[in-house]
Amino acid sequence: MLIILGPDHSKEQLDGVVARVSALGYKPHIIPGEHGTAIGVTGNAGPLDPRVFESLPGVKQAIPVTKSYKLAGRDFKSPDTAVEISPGLSVGAGRFIVMAGPCAVESREQTLRIARLVKKAGAHVLRGGAFKPRTSPYAFQGLGEEGLKILAEARAETGLPVVSEALDPASLELVYKYADVVQIGARNMQNFSLLREAGKLDKPVLLKRGLSATVDEWLQSAEYLLAEGNARIILCERGIRTFSSHTRNTLDLNAVPVAQKLSHLPVMVDPSHGTGVRDKVVPLARAAAAVGAHGVIIEVHDRPDEALCDGPQAMPPEVFAELVETLKKLGGVLGYTL
Amino acid sequence: MLIILGPDHSKEQLDGVVARVSALGYKPHIIPGEHGTAIGVTGNAGPLDPRVFESLPGVKQAIPVTKSYKLAGRDFKSPDTAVEISPGLSVGAGRFIVMAGPCAVESREQTLRIARLVKKAGAHVLRGGAFKPRTSPYAFQGLGEEGLKILAEARAETGLPVVSEALDPASLELVYKYADVVQIGARNMQNFSLLREAGKLDKPVLLKRGLSATVDEWLQSAEYLLAEGNARIILCERGIRTFSSHTRNTLDLNAVPVAQKLSHLPVMVDPSHGTGVRDKVVPLARAAAAVGAHGVIIEVHDRPDEALCDGPQAMPPEVFAELVETLKKLGGVLGYTL
Amino acid sequence: MLIILGPDHSKEQLDGVVARVSALGYKPHIIPGEHGTAIGVTGNAGPLDPRVFESLPGVKQAIPVTKSYKLAGRDFKSPDTAVEISPGLSVGAGRFIVMAGPCAVESREQTLRIARLVKKAGAHVLRGGAFKPRTSPYAFQGLGEEGLKILAEARAETGLPVVSEALDPASLELVYKYADVVQIGARNMQNFSLLREAGKLDKPVLLKRGLSATVDEWLQSAEYLLAEGNARIILCERGIRTFSSHTRNTLDLNAVPVAQKLSHLPVMVDPSHGTGVRDKVVPLARAAAAVGAHGVIIEVHDRPDEALCDGPQAMPPEVFAELVETLKKLGGVLGYTL
Amino acid sequence: MLIILGPDHSKEQLDGVVARVSALGYKPHIIPGEHGTAIGVTGNAGPLDPRVFESLPGVKQAIPVTKSYKLAGRDFKSPDTAVEISPGLSVGAGRFIVMAGPCAVESREQTLRIARLVKKAGAHVLRGGAFKPRTSPYAFQGLGEEGLKILAEARAETGLPVVSEALDPASLELVYKYADVVQIGARNMQNFSLLREAGKLDKPVLLKRGLSATVDEWLQSAEYLLAEGNARIILCERGIRTFSSHTRNTLDLNAVPVAQKLSHLPVMVDPSHGTGVRDKVVPLARAAAAVGAHGVIIEVHDRPDEALCDGPQAMPPEVFAELVETLKKLGGVLGYTL
Repeated sequence: MLIILGPDHSKEQLDGVVARVSALGYKPHIIPGEHGTAIGVTGNAGPLDPRVFESLPGVKQAIPVTKSYKLAGRDFKSPDTAVEISPGLSVGAGRFIVMAGPCAVESREQTLRIARLVKKAGAHVLRGGAFKPRTSPYAFQGLGEEGLKILAEARAETGLPVVSEALDPASLELVYKYADVVQIGARNMQNFSLLREAGKLDKPVLLKRGLSATVDEWLQSAEYLLAEGNARIILCERGIRTFSSHTRNTLDLNAVPVAQKLSHLPVMVDPSHGTGVRDKVVPLARAAAAVGAHGVIIEVHDRPDEALCDGPQAMPPEVFAELVETLKKLGGVLGYTL
Repeated sequence: MLIILGPDHSKEQLDGVVARVSALGYKPHIIPGEHGTAIGVTGNAGPLDPRVFESLPGVKQAIPVTKSYKLAGRDFKSPDTAVEISPGLSVGAGRFIVMAGPCAVESREQTLRIARLVKKAGAHVLRGGAFKPRTSPYAFQGLGEEGLKILAEARAETGLPVVSEALDPASLELVYKYADVVQIGARNMQNFSLLREAGKLDKPVLLKRGLSATVDEWLQSAEYLLAEGNARIILCERGIRTFSSHTRNTLDLNAVPVAQKLSHLPVMVDPSHGTGVRDKVVPLARAAAAVGAHGVIIEVHDRPDEALCDGPQAMPPEVFAELVETLKKLGGVLGYTL
Repeated sequence: MLIILGPDHSKEQLDGVVARVSALGYKPHIIPGEHGTAIGVTGNAGPLDPRVFESLPGVKQAIPVTKSYKLAGRDFKSPDTAVEISPGLSVGAGRFIVMAGPCAVESREQTLRIARLVKKAGAHVLRGGAFKPRTSPYAFQGLGEEGLKILAEARAETGLPVVSEALDPASLELVYKYADVVQIGARNMQNFSLLREAGKLDKPVLLKRGLSATVDEWLQSAEYLLAEGNARIILCERGIRTFSSHTRNTLDLNAVPVAQKLSHLPVMVDPSHGTGVRDKVVPLARAAAAVGAHGVIIEVHDRPDEALCDGPQAMPPEVFAELVETLKKLGGVLGYTL
Repeated sequence: MLIILGPDHSKEQLDGVVARVSALGYKPHIIPGEHGTAIGVTGNAGPLDPRVFESLPGVKQAIPVTKSYKLAGRDFKSPDTAVEISPGLSVGAGRFIVMAGPCAVESREQTLRIARLVKKAGAHVLRGGAFKPRTSPYAFQGLGEEGLKILAEARAETGLPVVSEALDPASLELVYKYADVVQIGARNMQNFSLLREAGKLDKPVLLKRGLSATVDEWLQSAEYLLAEGNARIILCERGIRTFSSHTRNTLDLNAVPVAQKLSHLPVMVDPSHGTGVRDKVVPLARAAAAVGAHGVIIEVHDRPDEALCDGPQAMPPEVFAELVETLKKLGGVLGYTL
């Protein structure tokens, strides 16, 4: 923490701040300057709330210095973390990982059909929602455990590991039972009790960034998982909310190299939710690879007009196959395998 | 839904859209125009996803018309809803309601002390967090059930009903047991399973607006509660996330008259979280009354420097007492009692 | 500037930063700490670009301390500035100032008619646009000098001083010639050559905040005017652009007490553009008074259906008269006259 | 325009809206439905303001249908526009165009040195600012005409055409005289008088997107240029302002395919301003190519520590040369030449 006093502060005000810092058990360092006095604070175990000092007389600003996460940061662990999903398949280990499948599991036939298609096209992991967080209470909410059983059957047939979203303690238990990767969605990025439960699991967690979350808050949510002992976290950028409404969300590819610099965790991108519009998914998926993401997660549906959920952002299987080909070729330039 | 085709669409494209609308069981109405053709869609029970039609050939835009909530809207219930908190005390019934208390219950002494002070100053309801949603896993997370017992004791002594936040199914059960109003916080506004559980309760719910929620999404979250049978909902604006960082959040007072026009539910304002800075809470609380809100919820602490949570946005009791006086006088001009 | 080095920085990296600071002519102050080393920088005349230091090896963050404006800040001039508009009429001197009139001057008849109505209702200043910045090149662009002459005639008849917007050097000269207050609109808040020209005038300038401007940037734009010698600046909040689309813009009343704390300049509010919707203007105008603004600027039209510009946000004269009455009564509680 | 009346509107209200539409000279089309009545409006020459109808009794919503630009849209001109910069060099014609150079022209030596370096690395156009829009009045404002002469000298030596920014009528004239492409910066995207002047020029204009501009507003600003007769417009995405502050701006690559679908004009990307941080420029430049942009504009400086402007986002020449190589190789996959 650095505390700034204005040019016309009194001796008493300076003494007051110094006394307060000392009373809290920290060490104050006075730095005189032309435009006021600064006081550096050291000795704190974690980040301090700047507003604690900003309310003292004479103080103009208090600036936090200590990071608000530890285990998720490069200071704690410098080399990249690779998260193993299944034997021989890891995210963050030089291979660009493609997860694909329907938004929601709608039926056994639909899921098996699409699973075969994405497997054939080159996907590494099958995605599919059994529990769907829907803005409206009247929208299709997913098949629940039945959906997870279908995903497990699709895995048995295709060999693709499965990622699926959990919404609450009850669904977390079920997703853990059937899936290989547990997804925490954007709306639950700060559902801290759910994070704590997921932190106790021995399976990887795909942690999506919240619609209004800073990268710092995203890493603090990862810290909840890490603090409980789960080190297998895959971050996933999926679009933020801005004034810019030509796409459903604003996919923030800037966040990919930023998160990769601050954290050792791998970072994937979800261009389907990030844009919400089918014909924007291919260009943004290519851009995700070019920006250096460790993989993408894509919604694919062979009959999007019949989809019960987000059909308009789903990609037909033949377009997906072509995209995988392009991503493979881009790897030749960008230095990854697929 | 209104579907717009561009000026140079073909007869086949128009026929295709008409056929698709009919196949979905809706009725198409063709409206020819200078700049293309529009097709009005009727016969749908709820809102349609515009992207379903925007992906058809020739279609330029599809515009939803049906609202995505029913029970929360003025179409369903035109007169204002008054939510009774305790016998003789209602939000939305011509009285400006003031909820006040510490951010978090820290100890029996602290809570009783502050409860007496806010009671004396004129507050109607005691607020206090027993379960705290914290961005960092290392921050103080609340006293849990112990905290709720303290709030109940404060109620017994002061007569003030209690509002406290629930985070998950387990804490919801406890908050329901001890408190008079259950708060769903901003981060949980789209925690749909929590909403569904809270919808089954026979106590009022204070539903805060999410940091990146539109008013429409806020009302859809209220709809989750209403659809389960709980009609005693108090909406609460508490600041949104924008580029504007001079306050912690941007308190969006525009949302108050907007929500009041669209919905019959009462709307309160939380200027403490909305601004996050102590000396901005008083002016924004006054502004909340002037804009027509049905009440405010304010953080008060008599020793903010020792607060375990959000001390810098807490107001000293004497400032709070003065604010209540001002709010009372404003009621003389604005037409409410306090 | 405070430069932060991470916990594992090398001696060479620290020396490198110290050398760089010295080479730039500033003085480095080393502050050792548990979580790295901080270097305080003093001796700089103005603000430094943090990125200059963040690109040096070992540096984790560089935090600016010096404010980026001087003349606009409370450090430079502590007491409130009152801006005189005409003899006996000042903004920021204990009186709540109401500026009102049509969005655009459309005709002599329309302007005189509305001028009389707002005068009668209690307005202090007549507003009216002769040069209109329009998003579309095909929209009505204002009457130009003809419009200014009409405003001058309205002033002659009603005695109300006139505020009108300038868009470029040519219109600035004309507005200066005819009006009493020159308005710089939101879209031109960072039109720096226009600011510089306006800074040379001996008439007050109403400087609107840009749609995506921070308060800091707004004050730097005021600094452009002040640096040229014009000290008669009235700041005006008029809504920012956020994801929240239920109003045209998000009127940011939080900015009022923030700007008032940082700067000595008076701050007005424009709820007409801030919300863009007629029935939201009255509640937000009341809220502007309650938050402590020094005045409001309101669009009034007696035949809004015929308005050539922004009719839907214009208030009928009778509603305006009632609003002025309410604002007057609020002054009795809030401590201003009108 | 589509006007929606709620389910409980009266016959009088419907008649009133129909009468109003007719009175304005448009044709109303009544579409009855379960959830209210819709009225389609045809016969309007340009877009209508929805608020004109939303203020009528019984109306719930009015939805614009007509686009607010014409000449910039695909409806007006379907095939892609290629903008010729110099004989044999066009943007939007299958070749990925790289513009590069210093943020500001600081001296003859600096500019010639960097011009040679970027030429050697493969740039097609030299960028350099002679008139700099600076947030602070105390920052370096550019060398003015002297700077433009230096750029012209650099062109004479290297053969690279020159792009440089104009801020106002006076600098526009000078930039037109010396440069090959006139840049209108983000802060001036809605400086309509400047746009109108630039629309009269017979040289290409690079029109940057404003920090808070929607794609629709960006295309309307292009329309200002087109309406004056200048058809040689290159759009340039350069980052928008969001809550997300880990980069200086949020480069919105989503806007590239969106603008390309709506408009026939070519779209470039500026990852230097878009991110504002040197080590993020390379990944985002690669992503710009992958998303389908027609080119990039990059800040390069061989002595960034000495740069008078935005040194921290400038790329060293050797990194730039490597980037050009990568972009060339990506063209092999993505189907462009460089």
